[in-house]
Amino acid sequence: MRTVWWDPAGPTLHMIDQRQLPAQLTVLALHTPEAVADAIRSMAVRGAPAIGVAAAFGLALAAAFASDPQDVVVRVDQAAELLRLARPKAANLRWAIDETLRRAGDRGSETFGLSLAVAAQALADEDVAINRQMGLHGADLLKDGDTVLHHCNTGALATVDYGTALGVIRTAHEQGKHLHVLVDETRPRLQGARLTAWELDQHGIDHAIIADSAAGRMLQQGEVNAVLVGADRVAANGDVANKIGTYMVALAAHDNRVPFYCVVPTSTVDPSTPDGAAIPIEERDPQEVLDLIHQGQQVAPEGSRALNPAFDITPARLVTAFVTEVGILRPPYPEALAKVRSS
Amino acid sequence: MRTVWWDPAGPTLHMIDQRQLPAQLTVLALHTPEAVADAIRSMAVRGAPAIGVAAAFGLALAAAFASDPQDVVVRVDQAAELLRLARPKAANLRWAIDETLRRAGDRGSETFGLSLAVAAQALADEDVAINRQMGLHGADLLKDGDTVLHHCNTGALATVDYGTALGVIRTAHEQGKHLHVLVDETRPRLQGARLTAWELDQHGIDHAIIADSAAGRMLQQGEVNAVLVGADRVAANGDVANKIGTYMVALAAHDNRVPFYCVVPTSTVDPSTPDGAAIPIEERDPQEVLDLIHQGQQVAPEGSRALNPAFDITPARLVTAFVTEVGILRPPYPEALAKVRSS
Repeated sequence: MRTVWWDPAGPTLHMIDQRQLPAQLTVLALHTPEAVADAIRSMAVRGAPAIGVAAAFGLALAAAFASDPQDVVVRVDQAAELLRLARPKAANLRWAIDETLRRAGDRGSETFGLSLAVAAQALADEDVAINRQMGLHGADLLKDGDTVLHHCNTGALATVDYGTALGVIRTAHEQGKHLHVLVDETRPRLQGARLTAWELDQHGIDHAIIADSAAGRMLQQGEVNAVLVGADRVAANGDVANKIGTYMVALAAHDNRVPFYCVVPTSTVDPSTPDGAAIPIEERDPQEVLDLIHQGQQVAPEGSRALNPAFDITPARLVTAFVTEVGILRPPYPEALAKVRSS
Repeated sequence: MRTVWWDPAGPTLHMIDQRQLPAQLTVLALHTPEAVADAIRSMAVRGAPAIGVAAAFGLALAAAFASDPQDVVVRVDQAAELLRLARPKAANLRWAIDETLRRAGDRGSETFGLSLAVAAQALADEDVAINRQMGLHGADLLKDGDTVLHHCNTGALATVDYGTALGVIRTAHEQGKHLHVLVDETRPRLQGARLTAWELDQHGIDHAIIADSAAGRMLQQGEVNAVLVGADRVAANGDVANKIGTYMVALAAHDNRVPFYCVVPTSTVDPSTPDGAAIPIEERDPQEVLDLIHQGQQVAPEGSRALNPAFDITPARLVTAFVTEVGILRPPYPEALAKVRSS
């Protein structure tokens, strides 16, 4: 089972509802671009590659409703705008929409709708292949017996299948290396405790959940051999936008001389963004922070305010290497990243 | 109302049950050292100074049950051992028990029981006076309009009254300075979101709760003028043991040139501990990490493992200054700390 998959009959876009995990494995069947935009907005589907592919199929759904080739173009353009706005600061979402439209070719063609579905499917299949490649490159960085610290969820659920940083862990595990994974719970939405722990459990990989704030202690004690994270966007200079908290983990890894690896497809590198300061950061609903019940009690006092930035910027100087589908990239990053984007 | 207070009639030790906050303000009435030890163990009372004073009164409760002066000594010694073991790695708890026994004087005396109560009361009153002094020294470091980032709870609830780091914020507020406090929620027990937010609300001090992982982003954006924390123990070289997560906040403050202040009574400085590596770290029940309901759902998959270190070590090099009742201490810390402890 993939995280997101297409059924031409209908047509229907299926996806695992990640809001229900780990309690229930529910599959959504979506028939309209509006439903796909809702799923992205509410994080039923999440993870940069997964929302990109979902949006690509959303364009194909828009075309399916059209009465004639002109109507296809109107509906697809409306859907593209709607889907972009579902998470307006997500670089991979924009990229996947633009790439699907580009690959689908002639907008006036009778088969433009079909071409969109074909292009979206190609994007999905490529994502899986790219993750497999990253897994193989990254697994070389891990030894039998290593303890790996991981932030957020970067597994099959964040992608179409297999995963980025978690794909590296999975590949090393499949190669017979025994790993122990420290799973940052990843407040406020708890993608680590909910999704990463669930995926590791499915694969039989040894792991323990920790509060995000405990990562520093684990690194300080010399218990961690490597930190692995994904990224939502990599700037041209190697600065990384990723799930809130990544920056502090990177600081702690650096302070304890533990390698910090960022596992990303080259499509996540954005040559038009010079550095981290130029990356806009999504502010999410404060209720995500406040809506918490601990030991049977509502946590925050009635009427509390909260702030909820979804990402932070890890400066390139804290990144030991990038693991991409074309290999391991080491500093200086401006040159290394420019090379892979132009190849 | 103090966090912990003594009623000689009974005798009874009263304390606010911090497990019930902010939903309910419940006061416990404890009549035995066993009940005090339970309250410390279950964190009905928490915060280094508060548990120290609670334990001191626990000794006085033990004496109240004795039939004769010999029985007093037996019961008090048993209680001292029991209370120490309630949180065996808490330095302030040990210190308060030893100090109360020392001050109470002659163990053979008819009035030893009464002397224990007097000594415990003196400890409680001194804690309040010390906090007031720290508040005045520390408030000089804050300007009108500052944004302050705070980790865990260090307020009236962590002490007998007034607070350490939060006492500094409160003093500055009482001096008419307008402050904005970013409240780290402080997983896993959420002392920030539950207790600090509640205290700030009581005092009418502007604040917003953030996930612990968001502290780095706030510091990175230049939105924070100072970080204020307390400490559970300060080693002779200035290394600080404090609530899990403090180390990563200190790293992020340092990386962004934001001053990081540690507010501690000099009793928290332990000259017999050379450095942070010599401080034993309490491992608490993993269930504290796992027992979380978010948006109506159990978070961690059934059967998940977790690790739950309660404290971490912030190296002295990351501490801009210590705020104590005798003034502000700046590096080099070995000399500065030795001086206050011997004075």
